[in-house]
Amino acid sequence: MLTYNFKDKKKPLYLQAYEFIKSDILSGNLKSNEKLPSKRTFAENNGVSIITIQNAYDLLLSEGFVYSKPRSGYYVSKIQSLKPTEKHSGIKHPVDLPAKEDIDIDLSSNIINPYSFPFSIWAKLSRQIISNLERELMEVCPGNGTYELRSAISSHLSSFRGMSVSPDQIVIGAGTEYLYSLILQLLGFDKLYSTENPGYDKLSKIYSQYHTKCKYLDMDDNGISINALNHSKASVVHICPNHHFPTGITMPASRRYEILEWASRSNDRFIIEDDYDSEFRTNGKPIPTLFSMDQREKVIYINTFSKSLSPTIRISYMVLPCSLASQYYKKLSFYSCTVSNFEQYTLAAFIKQGYFEKHINRMRLYYSKQREELKEILINSSLQGHFNIIDNESGLHFLIKLDTSLSDKTVYTRLLKNKIKIAPLSQYFQTEDKSSDHYFIINYSNLDMKKMPEVCETIASLLFPSHED
Amino acid sequence: MLTYNFKDKKKPLYLQAYEFIKSDILSGNLKSNEKLPSKRTFAENNGVSIITIQNAYDLLLSEGFVYSKPRSGYYVSKIQSLKPTEKHSGIKHPVDLPAKEDIDIDLSSNIINPYSFPFSIWAKLSRQIISNLERELMEVCPGNGTYELRSAISSHLSSFRGMSVSPDQIVIGAGTEYLYSLILQLLGFDKLYSTENPGYDKLSKIYSQYHTKCKYLDMDDNGISINALNHSKASVVHICPNHHFPTGITMPASRRYEILEWASRSNDRFIIEDDYDSEFRTNGKPIPTLFSMDQREKVIYINTFSKSLSPTIRISYMVLPCSLASQYYKKLSFYSCTVSNFEQYTLAAFIKQGYFEKHINRMRLYYSKQREELKEILINSSLQGHFNIIDNESGLHFLIKLDTSLSDKTVYTRLLKNKIKIAPLSQYFQTEDKSSDHYFIINYSNLDMKKMPEVCETIASLLFPSHED
Repeated sequence: MLTYNFKDKKKPLYLQAYEFIKSDILSGNLKSNEKLPSKRTFAENNGVSIITIQNAYDLLLSEGFVYSKPRSGYYVSKIQSLKPTEKHSGIKHPVDLPAKEDIDIDLSSNIINPYSFPFSIWAKLSRQIISNLERELMEVCPGNGTYELRSAISSHLSSFRGMSVSPDQIVIGAGTEYLYSLILQLLGFDKLYSTENPGYDKLSKIYSQYHTKCKYLDMDDNGISINALNHSKASVVHICPNHHFPTGITMPASRRYEILEWASRSNDRFIIEDDYDSEFRTNGKPIPTLFSMDQREKVIYINTFSKSLSPTIRISYMVLPCSLASQYYKKLSFYSCTVSNFEQYTLAAFIKQGYFEKHINRMRLYYSKQREELKEILINSSLQGHFNIIDNESGLHFLIKLDTSLSDKTVYTRLLKNKIKIAPLSQYFQTEDKSSDHYFIINYSNLDMKKMPEVCETIASLLFPSHED
Repeated sequence: MLTYNFKDKKKPLYLQAYEFIKSDILSGNLKSNEKLPSKRTFAENNGVSIITIQNAYDLLLSEGFVYSKPRSGYYVSKIQSLKPTEKHSGIKHPVDLPAKEDIDIDLSSNIINPYSFPFSIWAKLSRQIISNLERELMEVCPGNGTYELRSAISSHLSSFRGMSVSPDQIVIGAGTEYLYSLILQLLGFDKLYSTENPGYDKLSKIYSQYHTKCKYLDMDDNGISINALNHSKASVVHICPNHHFPTGITMPASRRYEILEWASRSNDRFIIEDDYDSEFRTNGKPIPTLFSMDQREKVIYINTFSKSLSPTIRISYMVLPCSLASQYYKKLSFYSCTVSNFEQYTLAAFIKQGYFEKHINRMRLYYSKQREELKEILINSSLQGHFNIIDNESGLHFLIKLDTSLSDKTVYTRLLKNKIKIAPLSQYFQTEDKSSDHYFIINYSNLDMKKMPEVCETIASLLFPSHED
């Protein structure tokens, strides 16, 4: 006869009974197909009510620990009890977390200034949208995003980038990394992809996750080398023609036409044009996109609001040529959109009501001031005479070439020990290339300029100690 | 000598000059390496200022249409001009858009009632977060999400599902579909995946996009068949043990232990437990999750806020066993999180301040009322006598079995012609299975019950016309 000690004052009696029996089943004390005592006997034996046992048996039944035979009673189900292995002794292993860096000044970070975000306008628009668009907010949008946001982006591209695209060609996604996975599904995992060397290092990580081959192709002063591309056997080339990261090169029209010509030579060739920070071009009219130069439906245009608004608002988009857009609808539109309606409608209003343009203009001015201020500080510091600035007055970073015999790695680790992080250009090369030595990337988008004179002195004393005297 | 007609009153003169020359370069009127006239001559000849021509030449230079030789002048670059092919005659093909359905009553939609969303609380929390957390909102969060949301979910799982998990084991993502892609990358694309037949039909689409094999395994009354699983050679099984979609079956403990035992037999076997609507269980205590029964780090638990809050807020999460969590950090944490900080912090506050629990309780009551009301309407309609309801009082749908000799397809198309959409269970079978005929899924989460008596009469007259007399 089952006798248990119902001593837990906080737990309902039926739950205690349930747990006692369950534990006996799992431990093997109660064997498969063994009959449980009748509710009345069990209740009397343990000094609890029949309804308590009834509830416990019901729960065991609903969870499948016991089964019932009509007019006979309850029986123990066959339960395969798994004892924890020695390795899994019930004590959980701690999760191996990545190590954290201890940094005071991060010249490698392209994080934007948090206080530049238009919080009050964003809050106002969010509020308006929540009170005016209840139905729209709850309606599941197409896989490529709400019509409102796509049409807002389409107008923006028309006035800002001279691109004439229908909202139907636009696909919204939670970040460019996510959009890359859609592009891979659209164009095929088995194609050979190629990109710039040096270049955006996450790309190779993403492609390799999908076991897709990605070749890094050398650059010359005009961008990705057309010879390298012609000899590469690549089907797809991923480039940042308007402001290459990290070199800052703008691809001239001649190279653009060469690449379009390359793509035209086979049906399965495509160009991915990453226009990630074109909004912050400060010298002259922005260069027309490859997408708008293309007349053969070969270019996928991709852009993000990470730089122009905030990296913590996960909204990017791509523009597909019409033929690929049709394929997208056929093959991939079953995927739910990855951006919430709330933020899609807020961003659409932000663009349509002219706030986005104003914000970009304000930020362009801000970044150009940051850039000039930092150059001034560098020139007036003890670093003067030890560096050259390579700057095309665009985006959120420039390069400096340090006049040092120290290796890039030594510079990097010596500064890191002093909590200053700086990224060497050589880090962005996927192949070893000595010619890139001593170039470093300076991201100025979120630097506190008040601290920079002192930081420059620290760097000078660490890298050029003779000047200390 | 170049002579152009500067007649556009709206466009700056330098832009007009730029466009004239560019167009002559692209058309071949100006040949590669041809020298452009000097700025002075050009300006005088066209009656514009030298500064106008200077600006036009600068722009052409910066875009690479011309190059300059010191003390000589400007020359035309070599541009590969691509004439549009016949197929791409400059006229864009329209995008093939998917056809839209014309439906009045959708019994197949599991969209939740838009007005049930807690708009005012959500708006209040969003406002508070925007004004109090400026810095946090702009700080890029770890790939698996903000600590705040992960710890809120961890507490929720502890009190609501009896699961003891560290926030480090939780990965936030923009929808379960996105999380599946991470799981595929974590466990491998080359493994054989398996899931329930009938089952969630998007799964096979997603897996096939990645060229990953997915086998549908038969079910019995206890869920996925353990025999089928044992004979399948699958490494991973994807199941909804707590409320199977669409049959509504709850997997009993015996089968759960069998599946855990199956997984324990090889190092590369894993179980994906999809707990998508467990919040709406109305009969009794929710069944413990497979994740919490597992002692060998074999179960990945996955859940979403699509059902419990709104499908238009794209937030889902998965809980990894510690060993897989460590692998996640090593292999996949380079990916940026796909959910915006704004919504992560809002949802974290919504959970931590107890609003989520209240909302679920309210919705559970609402859905159970909807369910009972619809059953009542069905029973009192002319359909009475023609159907049986199969309902386990959980989730947002039940099944009806129609007493008809019409094929499922006939029922489906006949109703669709009358703008009523209903999904047959057989549609969710990946293999042909006649035993599933005449079962239909009734989603009641967003039905307007006032319309339902008439809808039932329409269905009765369409499917059982003899009762019209």
